[in-house]
Amino acid sequence: MKASLARVALPLMLGAALAGPVVAQQGAAPAPAAAEAASGTEPSAAILELRRRFLDPGFMALAFHNMDGIFATQAVENGQRSHALPRAERPLDFTYDVDGRPIPAEDVLERTFTNALMIVRDGKVVYERYRNFTDERTRFTSMSMSKSITSILIGIAVDQGAIRSIDDQITTYVPELKGTPYDGVTIRDALEMKTGVDRSDGDQLKAGSEGAARREQILVRNALPAVDEAFMIRRKAEPGKTFDYSTLNVTILGWVLEKATGQPITAFTSRHLWQPMGAEAPAYWMADGPGAKGRPLTGMGYNATMRDYARIGMMMLDQGRANGRQVVSRKWVSETTGGPHPAIAPGASRGYQFLWWTVPGMPAYMADGLAGQYIYIDPPTRTVIVKLSYVPLTSRQTGEETSAFFRAACAWAARQGR
Amino acid sequence: MKASLARVALPLMLGAALAGPVVAQQGAAPAPAAAEAASGTEPSAAILELRRRFLDPGFMALAFHNMDGIFATQAVENGQRSHALPRAERPLDFTYDVDGRPIPAEDVLERTFTNALMIVRDGKVVYERYRNFTDERTRFTSMSMSKSITSILIGIAVDQGAIRSIDDQITTYVPELKGTPYDGVTIRDALEMKTGVDRSDGDQLKAGSEGAARREQILVRNALPAVDEAFMIRRKAEPGKTFDYSTLNVTILGWVLEKATGQPITAFTSRHLWQPMGAEAPAYWMADGPGAKGRPLTGMGYNATMRDYARIGMMMLDQGRANGRQVVSRKWVSETTGGPHPAIAPGASRGYQFLWWTVPGMPAYMADGLAGQYIYIDPPTRTVIVKLSYVPLTSRQTGEETSAFFRAACAWAARQGR
Repeated sequence: MKASLARVALPLMLGAALAGPVVAQQGAAPAPAAAEAASGTEPSAAILELRRRFLDPGFMALAFHNMDGIFATQAVENGQRSHALPRAERPLDFTYDVDGRPIPAEDVLERTFTNALMIVRDGKVVYERYRNFTDERTRFTSMSMSKSITSILIGIAVDQGAIRSIDDQITTYVPELKGTPYDGVTIRDALEMKTGVDRSDGDQLKAGSEGAARREQILVRNALPAVDEAFMIRRKAEPGKTFDYSTLNVTILGWVLEKATGQPITAFTSRHLWQPMGAEAPAYWMADGPGAKGRPLTGMGYNATMRDYARIGMMMLDQGRANGRQVVSRKWVSETTGGPHPAIAPGASRGYQFLWWTVPGMPAYMADGLAGQYIYIDPPTRTVIVKLSYVPLTSRQTGEETSAFFRAACAWAARQGR
Repeated sequence: MKASLARVALPLMLGAALAGPVVAQQGAAPAPAAAEAASGTEPSAAILELRRRFLDPGFMALAFHNMDGIFATQAVENGQRSHALPRAERPLDFTYDVDGRPIPAEDVLERTFTNALMIVRDGKVVYERYRNFTDERTRFTSMSMSKSITSILIGIAVDQGAIRSIDDQITTYVPELKGTPYDGVTIRDALEMKTGVDRSDGDQLKAGSEGAARREQILVRNALPAVDEAFMIRRKAEPGKTFDYSTLNVTILGWVLEKATGQPITAFTSRHLWQPMGAEAPAYWMADGPGAKGRPLTGMGYNATMRDYARIGMMMLDQGRANGRQVVSRKWVSETTGGPHPAIAPGASRGYQFLWWTVPGMPAYMADGLAGQYIYIDPPTRTVIVKLSYVPLTSRQTGEETSAFFRAACAWAARQGR
């Protein structure tokens, strides 16, 4: 790896595009960047700038439902069989508390920067609202909710036997990763964010950092496959010990999925999740590499309609059953969501298991993406809430207010059902 | 009008939304702003911010083909009868000159901030290219190309006799404008940008100006109908004398069109232009007033596919005929486009007639919208070029380079046809 690292480091620091993706050395064979440039399909300066700025407040509200106008994507086809969600809509006649003050429920929309909000109680839509010129056909970004979706895909691969055990080494499926910090890391370690690799998401957003330079090459310029970061980083802790959140772990799980199943991730998502689950609209993955010919960004790149996000939540609530089928096994859902929901560290307010977030002491769990994307699942009240938002990254109170709303909404939904 | 002005001026200066639109006093009756607020359809803070910033460089490339994600709109339906444009595509094997240096033709795309470019020669598509994740279904903003489209609509109303003469006073059709600076102004004056009203577009983009305060109320907050500006401004010159470009003149022509035809502008556009012309996709108008229940922004608000913009150019080239029909009269097209194309002022490099731009001494004429939107029509070579761009407003050379490209492209297209 030393030679490869040396070759990569200099151009990255200079912010220059590499002539060819490093992973080509590793056996994969994406289209060479030079050919892309020649065919005129490299991103324009305007697209590069949009990619650098899509998280800017004041832009997110639009960008988050137009990711296919900013990033290269791959369509995830839905199937022919989809059932409309039953409806039992009613006014949100409850309040939730912020600093001891009761807030009318629907105020949550503007107060917490909401593009769309949906509440499903016991299989029926009790509330569905779109704002800012979005509607039921709009595909919204999931950001890190993609990780929870990838968790389901890994579960399906385990159910099928394509992944024999999540305690297998990652290198069993992706020998290309031998000699990298992922050597000696198990699939379970990655599902639990305990890989020990030195690669933080926060660093990626810090101007001038090595992480930001890699982000520029991978996410902005599509000059390198996202998995190539594995070849550019070091190990900082023993695998399996410490929770340390990094999107790269899920990028690598995507590679494992591809190699274990022998199928492109996008095709696998369509065939084994989106079609059997009964999604009502196609989704799309943001994809890496030149010309979107690479892999889905499994840690951040899924985009779907709000109703189909709700279907994911309902499927989890129903122990993996959806659309009359067992899409992912009851066993996998139980491992993913089962209590006692320990905290990620002693005294921490949140737990994390198999790429879903939990709250210690609470039965609810959730997919949670940057800037306020949620699929919130509360088994006791059989409530699923989807919230798609554009919370400024500097906001400090919005997450807490959203949690208060979720708890109040579940209690309200349960009262309505009686 | 004095009372009305006084009532309006203070809240405008404070940047506060008015309780109700001023024009309600004038006889029209849009939905009251208060009712809108109560029904929760007022724009969110995020939408207000997007509207303030849609002209920012680095954002325009996306905003300009997603105006319906930022502004309230009204759909302009196309008809059932539309013919695919014949095709005779070929590589752009020519150069154009910039400062005496030959530039390969296709470099114009990135050099001049292009989302999409199309060249039609003698009724056949010889080049059609989409960039930045746009395609043949994308609806692009026209910005001030809308004015040329409104010119066609006025021509159709004249053909129908709904407007008896363009030398009629505007107040003949819109008596509400009596006592405003549009009192004593003819339709022709507005078509020639010689109304003498004191209202500049540049002022609207100057922070802290009165124009910017009105823009905030009208374009950003939808608190007032766009025509209300007529009640807030003064006259600065005698009507009919001096060219002085202002979008408000075309907003007012939209009102004339509505009153003269007795039809909503959007319905009129669909019935008498978009359907008979054989547009292949619906278009949409940005609309003013609370909840998009107001009028189309006839000076800047049209959005359509590139192919349908090309159809407009081809119809003009064919003296008003399109889709086997005379959509607008040969006489109107001749008045609009006929030579000798005098300059707007002695020595000026451009001419303007009936809301189309010309170049003195050249037979070509064009619709031209802010930041690089063009339908360029060159009768001698029977060439139509559509260019949809996101030129930063600070750019000084791009317009000239684009003109050089247009001239070279027409010469090239003519050579190909022989």
